Amino acid sequence: MTIQYVFELLGTSLFAISGALIANEESKPDWFGVTFIGFVTAIGGGSLRDMLLGSYPLVWVSDVTFLYAILAGIFLSSIFYSLLLRLPKTLLLFDTLGIALFTILGTEKALGFGIHPVVASMMGMFSAVMGGVIRDVLTNRVPVLFQKEVYATACLAGGLLFVWLEHLGLNRDYNFILSGSLIVAIRIIAVNYGLSLPKFIREQPSKK
Amino acid sequence: MTIQYVFELLGTSLFAISGALIANEESKPDWFGVTFIGFVTAIGGGSLRDMLLGSYPLVWVSDVTFLYAILAGIFLSSIFYSLLLRLPKTLLLFDTLGIALFTILGTEKALGFGIHPVVASMMGMFSAVMGGVIRDVLTNRVPVLFQKEVYATACLAGGLLFVWLEHLGLNRDYNFILSGSLIVAIRIIAVNYGLSLPKFIREQPSKK
Amino acid sequence: MTIQYVFELLGTSLFAISGALIANEESKPDWFGVTFIGFVTAIGGGSLRDMLLGSYPLVWVSDVTFLYAILAGIFLSSIFYSLLLRLPKTLLLFDTLGIALFTILGTEKALGFGIHPVVASMMGMFSAVMGGVIRDVLTNRVPVLFQKEVYATACLAGGLLFVWLEHLGLNRDYNFILSGSLIVAIRIIAVNYGLSLPKFIREQPSKK
Repeated sequence: MTIQYVFELLGTSLFAISGALIANEESKPDWFGVTFIGFVTAIGGGSLRDMLLGSYPLVWVSDVTFLYAILAGIFLSSIFYSLLLRLPKTLLLFDTLGIALFTILGTEKALGFGIHPVVASMMGMFSAVMGGVIRDVLTNRVPVLFQKEVYATACLAGGLLFVWLEHLGLNRDYNFILSGSLIVAIRIIAVNYGLSLPKFIREQPSKK
Repeated sequence: MTIQYVFELLGTSLFAISGALIANEESKPDWFGVTFIGFVTAIGGGSLRDMLLGSYPLVWVSDVTFLYAILAGIFLSSIFYSLLLRLPKTLLLFDTLGIALFTILGTEKALGFGIHPVVASMMGMFSAVMGGVIRDVLTNRVPVLFQKEVYATACLAGGLLFVWLEHLGLNRDYNFILSGSLIVAIRIIAVNYGLSLPKFIREQPSKK
Repeated sequence: MTIQYVFELLGTSLFAISGALIANEESKPDWFGVTFIGFVTAIGGGSLRDMLLGSYPLVWVSDVTFLYAILAGIFLSSIFYSLLLRLPKTLLLFDTLGIALFTILGTEKALGFGIHPVVASMMGMFSAVMGGVIRDVLTNRVPVLFQKEVYATACLAGGLLFVWLEHLGLNRDYNFILSGSLIVAIRIIAVNYGLSLPKFIREQPSKK
């Protein structure tokens, strides 16, 4: 429980860092704008999941520690700004660990509401990716979710593995590590080899 | 009840098809992106209505059949993609039947919460049109809602007729058909004759 | 109570006017589009706050008077359109009074949920500014929130002052006036002197 709580705070902080960096890259906003977008990136996915589930109070509303974790992340990203930009692989790793963690925790929480396992996996994926979607919408960009290499798909796959292994009765901690690793593995492999999902329609019918 | 359930699933499926087609037209995303946008288009309006009403659990969260209806719609729109694009009038009819159905069902559900009939009609309209608004926001477009011919207005008119006839004590099924037909009629006439609502301000004051 | 209710209605109406004017400036939509955007601007911030708090029913859902206040605002902004555009300072004053009122009322409401005072201040700020953010997202613009002079920051400062003075035991009405005045003062001074918050990163590291 305590380790999980620390991980959750850490994941929130990492998401705030990625939000702050991307916000700054875009439009050079002031401190408030960066903090706001970092905050929304960090809590958006989990908040949407909880609002879809009707799970109140929201985590960050009832526990101010999450707010401090976000502010710490944004402060750190200000101090180590140049360094972070020079370490894209480290950032990618952080981000990947963050989405893996959020997916599994979100899936597990949704399962606790007694909903269908496939819907629970979607809730897990939402936890991980919707903060970034909201960030992109606020900064007026097409969400990277719809353009980038296998990203949300990796989360969904991990969530589905989790609910399946849970159904089979696997020990929860092993399941956590296995399903999380699947997300990390898919994401890292997809980025390294430039893999992407097939296009919905390969040829334009108008060109026929 | 059973017929209504089938209609709801069918409407959800039709909305997913229209979402998938529009998503693909825009930015040629991969399978995941198209499915995601189709899903959001299909469940966005009803989910927003329920979250505004505080009506939990959301329909698609508690009943996985809606998810299957969406996936079926997206699968069909992949197979019949060229055909569908060649049948814009059929698509328009499907879409119009979908918004009529969603408006009346949404208005009726909102009325069940004991809220003011005018607000209930707005909730019905939201059920029908907000999925498309969310789809447009996610694909970084100005919602067609704010540009297109009498669209949401038709829904609002149908919702208002429904609550009025309900108030007068008309049999619910007759009311359903009458109010739904009003929506279909307004929409079809508006499209056929290129009707639109008056502009908010006709002349630019700066040009005076 | 009654005075506060009148103020709330007035604030809602003012927000609808500002929403309608900005919507019309953008894309010359029809009456429905302007009304829709005015409505969303007016109730968006408070609705988001209540949905984050899980506070149901939403104010405008249970009390149709707010809808009438919005419609009145939009009707007035249609009649006095040219006049309003010629009085930008008056508009600014209205807007500033509106955000001050909404921030303090929102902070107070959030405090009633027993949440941390800093989170309550954020909820107050959300009440004031998120309606405008949603309006900007719907009209496909980067939210002014992330570009404009000290705006949301003024709200946050006022909210924090309110929870602090509340903690110190100050009479609620005095507190209301004091904290609200701080918001108005910061905003007016910032606009008059063209003040803005420091950029998150002053120099581009890539230019070094």
